[in-house]
Amino acid sequence: MEDKKTNILPESYPMTGGNGPHSYAQNSCYQKGVVDAAKEIINEAIAKKLDIENLSFVSLNPFRIADLGCSVGPNTFIAVQNILEAVELKYQAQGLNSCIPEFQVFFNDHITNDFNTLFASLPPDRKYFAVAVPGSFYGRLFPKASLHFVHSSYAISWLSKIPKEVVDINSPAWNKERIHYINATKEVGEAYSAQYAKDMESFLSARAQELVCGGLMALLIATIPNGTTYSTVNMFDLLAYCLREMANMGLVSEAKVDSFNLPLYIPSHKELETVVERNGYFSIERMEPLSHPMRQTTLSLQTIMLSLRAALGGVIEEHFGSEIIDEVFDRFTNKVAESSFILNPENRKEIDLFILLKRKSD
Amino acid sequence: MEDKKTNILPESYPMTGGNGPHSYAQNSCYQKGVVDAAKEIINEAIAKKLDIENLSFVSLNPFRIADLGCSVGPNTFIAVQNILEAVELKYQAQGLNSCIPEFQVFFNDHITNDFNTLFASLPPDRKYFAVAVPGSFYGRLFPKASLHFVHSSYAISWLSKIPKEVVDINSPAWNKERIHYINATKEVGEAYSAQYAKDMESFLSARAQELVCGGLMALLIATIPNGTTYSTVNMFDLLAYCLREMANMGLVSEAKVDSFNLPLYIPSHKELETVVERNGYFSIERMEPLSHPMRQTTLSLQTIMLSLRAALGGVIEEHFGSEIIDEVFDRFTNKVAESSFILNPENRKEIDLFILLKRKSD
Repeated sequence: MEDKKTNILPESYPMTGGNGPHSYAQNSCYQKGVVDAAKEIINEAIAKKLDIENLSFVSLNPFRIADLGCSVGPNTFIAVQNILEAVELKYQAQGLNSCIPEFQVFFNDHITNDFNTLFASLPPDRKYFAVAVPGSFYGRLFPKASLHFVHSSYAISWLSKIPKEVVDINSPAWNKERIHYINATKEVGEAYSAQYAKDMESFLSARAQELVCGGLMALLIATIPNGTTYSTVNMFDLLAYCLREMANMGLVSEAKVDSFNLPLYIPSHKELETVVERNGYFSIERMEPLSHPMRQTTLSLQTIMLSLRAALGGVIEEHFGSEIIDEVFDRFTNKVAESSFILNPENRKEIDLFILLKRKSD
Repeated sequence: MEDKKTNILPESYPMTGGNGPHSYAQNSCYQKGVVDAAKEIINEAIAKKLDIENLSFVSLNPFRIADLGCSVGPNTFIAVQNILEAVELKYQAQGLNSCIPEFQVFFNDHITNDFNTLFASLPPDRKYFAVAVPGSFYGRLFPKASLHFVHSSYAISWLSKIPKEVVDINSPAWNKERIHYINATKEVGEAYSAQYAKDMESFLSARAQELVCGGLMALLIATIPNGTTYSTVNMFDLLAYCLREMANMGLVSEAKVDSFNLPLYIPSHKELETVVERNGYFSIERMEPLSHPMRQTTLSLQTIMLSLRAALGGVIEEHFGSEIIDEVFDRFTNKVAESSFILNPENRKEIDLFILLKRKSD
C-alpha cells in the first residue's frame, strides 16, 4: 500500500537516535521553542477551524492525530499533547464534555528512526493510544480518510533526495563547489527548487487522501521572506570549507566531497503558497511567523553545534562514514566560532513559519 | 488511555531481539509450523464467520488487523499476510472485488520489544499500512471498536506477572523448590491458575472494547487436554536443577533462585472455555488442535535449545543478569541432552490449539 514508493525508497535522514550527548532528543531546544510558541496558535486554530459540528461525532471517535517526522522526542510529545488539549478544550467550550473522543496518536518517521527510544520515553500519563508508523511521508502512510489532524515540525525541510543534477558532473547544475543551493549557481537553486515542488506535491497528495474532509494540517517550517537573497557566508558554506580542507589533507576523498549535498530546502512564503495552491486539495487557513524567545537568544557555541550535529550528523555519517564525524564537527565548530556574524541571531534570515491547512471537501 | 495500567505496568518479557544467533527472529521455526498450520483454518474461519454482509462496508474500510505479542518477526508477517489474503478471497468470492478494503496492520508487543528490528524486516511488497503499538495486551491498546481481526500466537501463554504468593516465603504457595507450577504443590498450581484467570479476564475485556461487534479473534496457544497430569520430569525441572546447581556452586545467590519463577501458563481446554464463558463478550466459534509437521519431528538438540533460549533467555537475564546466561544455557543443554524422554516428541503433552472467538453484539 506504500504503493510504488517501496521500490524507490526515498533516502532517509533520521536525526541522531538514542539519548546520548549527540542525540536529537538532548539537542533540540530550538525546535522546542518553536513548538511552545505554536501552542497558542494551535489552540486558536482548533477552536476556530475544526468543524466538529459538521463532522459526525462517530467519525471523530477516535480522534486520530499524526506527527510526521517525529524523531525520538521529546518535542513530538509536547506537540501532540498541545493538540489533544486544544481538542478537549473545544469540546468543553461547546458543552460537549461527554462526547470527548478517545485519541490515537501516530508517531511517524523514517524506518531507520530510533523508535525503541521513542517508545521508551513515551509520557507515562498520556491520555492517548500511541502508535508508530515507519516510512517516508512523501508516500502514503495511512488508510484513506483515517486522520483528523496532521502535525509536522521542521521535517518537510528535508527533501526526499538530493536532486540528481547537482551530483551529475555533466549537468549545468553540477554543484562541485558547495554542498547546498544557498550561494550556489542559479542552476543548482533551480534543481533544488524543482525537487522541492515535486516533493511537496507528493506530500500534499498523500495527506489529501489520508485526512478526512475538514481535517487540519499544521506545519512548522523554516522559510525565507519573499525576495531574500543570501550575499554573505552561511553555516553551510563553513561546513563545505571544512570538508574541502579535509579533502586537501587527504582525510576524505575529493570525489566524496564533490558528491555531497545537503537535502535541505528553505522555501519562500510565495513558493510555499504556490505549491499548496497548485496541489489544490487544501485551503490555507493561516500562515504566520512564530515569534519565540529562542529566536532572539544568542545561543552558546556549544548549543548551536550540538544542535547542528544532532540534525546533520546522520546525513554526514551516511555519506562519509562514522570515522570522520568527530573531526568534521571539531573543524566546523572552530570555523563557526571565528564568525561573529553567524553567531549573531540578528543575521539569521530564516523565519519560523506556522501554516495551517484544511482539507477541502471533494 | 492505558488507564490505570500505566502505574502498575505488567512485567515485560520480550523475546530476544535483533537478528543474532540467539534471537527469536532466527529461532522460532516451531512457532512458524503452527502459523502455517493455521493458515487453512483462518481462511475457512474468515470465509464462514466474518460477516462482511452485516458490517457496513464503510466501517470495514480500512480493515484493521492486530497481531498481539508479535515479537520481531518473521512469523508475525506470515500470520497477517494469511489473514489479509483470506479477507481478499472472501470479497472476491462474493463478487465484491471493487470493495476490497485497504488494510492497516497493528504490530503489538511490550514497549521493550525490538521494534527497530521489526520495522527493518517488514516485507517490502506488503499490501498494508504497517504500524507498531507498544504496551501490554492485558490493558487497553486501541480505541473503542477500532479493530476487525485480532491474532495472537503463543503470546497469551505469558502471564502478566508471577503470582505474588509463589515468591512469598510466608505463603503456603511459596514455590521454593521449583520454578514453575508443573509438578509443584497444589497451592502453587492454584496461584498460577488464579493469575491466569485474572489475566484472561483483563485480556478479553480489553479486546471486547477494541473489536467491532462481529469482529474475530484467532488465538494460537499451547494447551493440555482436560485432566492431564504431569508425573515425569519436564523441561522446566531440568532448568531448575541447573539453577540450583549454580547456586550450590556460588555462581548465583540461592535467594535469587528461590524467587525465580517462569510466568508461563498452559491451560486445559476446559479452563480456557471457562474463562471465555465467564467473560461473556465472545462466542467460541471454533476450537481445535492444530496438527503440523513440526509437532511429530524430532528436532535437533541445538534447535530445541536455541528456541528455548530465544523464548526464555529474556526472563532469565532480567532476573539473574546477563553475565550468567551462557553458563545457564550450557548447563541446561547438557541436562536436556541426557534426557531421551524429553527429546522424544511423543512425550510432549501440550497441544497446539486454534481457537476462534467472535465479539458478540452488545
